[in-house]
Amino acid sequence: MADDRMTVAQLRAAMAQFVAEREWDKFHSPKNLSMGLSVEAAELMEHFLWIDNAESRTVGQDPVRRQEVADEMADIACYLLALANTLQIDLSESIANKLLKNARKYPVEQYRGRFKLDN
Amino acid sequence: MADDRMTVAQLRAAMAQFVAEREWDKFHSPKNLSMGLSVEAAELMEHFLWIDNAESRTVGQDPVRRQEVADEMADIACYLLALANTLQIDLSESIANKLLKNARKYPVEQYRGRFKLDN
Amino acid sequence: MADDRMTVAQLRAAMAQFVAEREWDKFHSPKNLSMGLSVEAAELMEHFLWIDNAESRTVGQDPVRRQEVADEMADIACYLLALANTLQIDLSESIANKLLKNARKYPVEQYRGRFKLDN
Amino acid sequence: MADDRMTVAQLRAAMAQFVAEREWDKFHSPKNLSMGLSVEAAELMEHFLWIDNAESRTVGQDPVRRQEVADEMADIACYLLALANTLQIDLSESIANKLLKNARKYPVEQYRGRFKLDN
Repeated sequence: MADDRMTVAQLRAAMAQFVAEREWDKFHSPKNLSMGLSVEAAELMEHFLWIDNAESRTVGQDPVRRQEVADEMADIACYLLALANTLQIDLSESIANKLLKNARKYPVEQYRGRFKLDN
Repeated sequence: MADDRMTVAQLRAAMAQFVAEREWDKFHSPKNLSMGLSVEAAELMEHFLWIDNAESRTVGQDPVRRQEVADEMADIACYLLALANTLQIDLSESIANKLLKNARKYPVEQYRGRFKLDN
Repeated sequence: MADDRMTVAQLRAAMAQFVAEREWDKFHSPKNLSMGLSVEAAELMEHFLWIDNAESRTVGQDPVRRQEVADEMADIACYLLALANTLQIDLSESIANKLLKNARKYPVEQYRGRFKLDN
Repeated sequence: MADDRMTVAQLRAAMAQFVAEREWDKFHSPKNLSMGLSVEAAELMEHFLWIDNAESRTVGQDPVRRQEVADEMADIACYLLALANTLQIDLSESIANKLLKNARKYPVEQYRGRFKLDN
């Protein structure tokens, strides 16, 4: 897997180069990038719109739909990388912090197998 | 920056462990994860809702709002990593493919400084 | 039901008055209103995030959650009414046109009980 | 304007007939409808993605784009009507309640010309 070798910084650099070559920084305000990301998130969601959770788990087995879903995920990732570049935010550090915060918010003993305490 | 050292696979592994410890795989259908991602994308967007593009560029200068935005970006990243884990999709490869596809779709000569041909 | 008596124009007028009293027209660009509507749509969706389709049908039976869902739907409606006011678009006519267009796109004989032709 | 004559109940009835003719109630769980609404909200937002607030106010002057935007607004309205039908929620009453709640939350004297107290 390319994910095994690729650092987040390398992905950020590839995105930064793509944007710089087209002089698109002027469009890449955080407001616009957050909108673009939300639009791509909706396009991802559309693949799972009318089906049940169970059926959505089988989408990865169909090569065509798998590729379409991977493409939408890449679009989301690109906007996230572009926003990290624009705001100079360290994504890996933010993710590590968030996982720590969520580990405290959802202690294993209380949340094993449930997403809220009364379910 | 942690982004300089961290591979995507390492981030995926951290997310996978978080989910496995809580036995949350049963909630992590692609349908649910795409909805969660879209909800977090909206929460990111909310930070830029009533302001202009220009003002949205200054958000990174306010430490409190910067941290809030970084937190929302981490939430989005976590859902994306979880979905990549569930569907066993190589994010780095998908991003590389998408950048190639977009480079062909938006040739530098035609799209420099513009996001569509007639603007 | 108030829906039996209330015209769309009366709802539009109530929303217009609310906005005018606060001099919020300056914030109500179509760009901002579309973002706000999308944020509220995500808040509605959040109520159904981790549950199955079947369980989501029972939400209306719990008075507290029913009220929360009705509140989110009202938020969405308010943004839609505000956008119709800003752009001076006739919502009822647009809905009638769209239903005609969709009736042609999804003929009853072919789409009865299915949302696409091969399912 | 058709909005002057059309009651919300009449719009709901038109939508209910469209759904019943196709036997689509089985797809119309609140979970699915909230996802569909969010997808359409993103499609609306896409029309205003790369432009400034000021430019977004001019979109209504271009007949083609005006029609496209009206179409997206109708899609959102249709999902909202379908959800109101599924959950048997009185939209007009919910909107009236929400406007009262917001009128208390945003008193005219304090919020005139501002969307939060320190801006």
